[in-house]
Amino acid sequence: MYISINNKLFLKEEANISVADLSIQRGYGIFDFIKTINNKPIFIQDYFNRFYHSAKEMNLEVELDRTQLHEAILKLIEKNNIPNSGIKMILTGGFSDDGYTMVKPNLIIIQTPLNIIESETSKALALVSYNHQRQIPQVKTIDYLQAIRLQKFVSESDADDLLYHNNETVRECPRANFFIITGNEIITAKHEILKGITRSKILGLDIPNYTFVERDFTLDEVYHAKEAFISSSTKNAFPVNKVDGKLIGDQKNSITKLINHKLLALIELDQNS
Amino acid sequence: MYISINNKLFLKEEANISVADLSIQRGYGIFDFIKTINNKPIFIQDYFNRFYHSAKEMNLEVELDRTQLHEAILKLIEKNNIPNSGIKMILTGGFSDDGYTMVKPNLIIIQTPLNIIESETSKALALVSYNHQRQIPQVKTIDYLQAIRLQKFVSESDADDLLYHNNETVRECPRANFFIITGNEIITAKHEILKGITRSKILGLDIPNYTFVERDFTLDEVYHAKEAFISSSTKNAFPVNKVDGKLIGDQKNSITKLINHKLLALIELDQNS
Repeated sequence: MYISINNKLFLKEEANISVADLSIQRGYGIFDFIKTINNKPIFIQDYFNRFYHSAKEMNLEVELDRTQLHEAILKLIEKNNIPNSGIKMILTGGFSDDGYTMVKPNLIIIQTPLNIIESETSKALALVSYNHQRQIPQVKTIDYLQAIRLQKFVSESDADDLLYHNNETVRECPRANFFIITGNEIITAKHEILKGITRSKILGLDIPNYTFVERDFTLDEVYHAKEAFISSSTKNAFPVNKVDGKLIGDQKNSITKLINHKLLALIELDQNS
Repeated sequence: MYISINNKLFLKEEANISVADLSIQRGYGIFDFIKTINNKPIFIQDYFNRFYHSAKEMNLEVELDRTQLHEAILKLIEKNNIPNSGIKMILTGGFSDDGYTMVKPNLIIIQTPLNIIESETSKALALVSYNHQRQIPQVKTIDYLQAIRLQKFVSESDADDLLYHNNETVRECPRANFFIITGNEIITAKHEILKGITRSKILGLDIPNYTFVERDFTLDEVYHAKEAFISSSTKNAFPVNKVDGKLIGDQKNSITKLINHKLLALIELDQNS
């Protein structure tokens, strides 16, 4: 398997960078993650929009323009031939002589196999809430200090993942957005979150008898919701049946399944475009 | 110059690690920074205390015990022979197959030349305040996202560094603690900060007619202080003459100079011990 570093290909075993890199020295970097189905990157322009936006917000220059970045990704896809995959683009602060001053960024592109074809399964996630507001939330930085640190806490809580809230106001999961369904509303957080591409695709769906609402909501509203689900590139719309040990709704997730079904149709459309 | 990676020495040019490391993937790591004077590491046990504490808080195991780590550092000092230096120990989340799950940590030790012998200079710093609460503040993580991102803001503000506050309550600088002198009190923040080793040494000094106080204080108190200074391993006690463009006190920094003088005596004592 090949990894691209500054638009040169390296075998995985040889894909190394200097310890002077500002990601290692100061945790400084952004990334984005695109999935491919049958070697086709899905919603690639949306991910590019966010990637270049993140770079700009963090004063990182991307040496490749969109066309060049697209070409670099297609070259990697061709070389690796992993039809269903995740493609992670990481942009770091570069090799810094003093370990602090930002320099010429390094661009790393890594492709990994991904089991994309999730059936509309009966599985569902258990989440455990945690009071944490991500810093610079609108930017997809590499900062996952809390998420990684709390891996032990998550497993000790018999949960699959975290649900961040800011003093009871629900935000997001470390790698996914979060929705609840209450009455005839499908609600997701509006402020101080990373706005996921999958989230935005879901907000554009037509779900009969339901309206989408972006607003703040509380943990208590989660506990009393009819359904809850997360959205992400890898999980699509995936049911959440338990939060903080409390069962959510009737556990049937019928609206979530409908949302996921319509989302998969949208993905298929892009795949064949 | 040699760099130690997992207790093996590499030439600087060959000190590379895999892009699978969790510092690059998820900004996950801790570090600490020890200075040497004439090849003697200063206050090494204090830094070790904090380093092992940080590691524990972040669920990272240090493969070397204190004796072995001390030996690794002495080996590097002998090999590099940079008498006045900074020694940075970075402990990352390790090479993670899925780029998320914590694995066996990597320990990187880097030595760089440092101009230690600061004269009791008339120079002083200008700071610009910024509303930011560091996450997991009691741990010396590699998270400097805000500090690096704001480098442009700092220079555009004609300042030398940032002063973080949490809604007007003063915290710390990105790489230093912060003190003000008001009336007969030398005041420094108590909560939600990284407690620096130099800070703790200063708090133990005897300054006639003055008492040390650890408590919350506001930006407004800073603007009206008699003196202000930062403390860090590299800067010792270093005067701050300007915050947010406002001149602090009479610009003579006589108490700060006395504190720095006594601190240097303490360092010399450790150096000769």
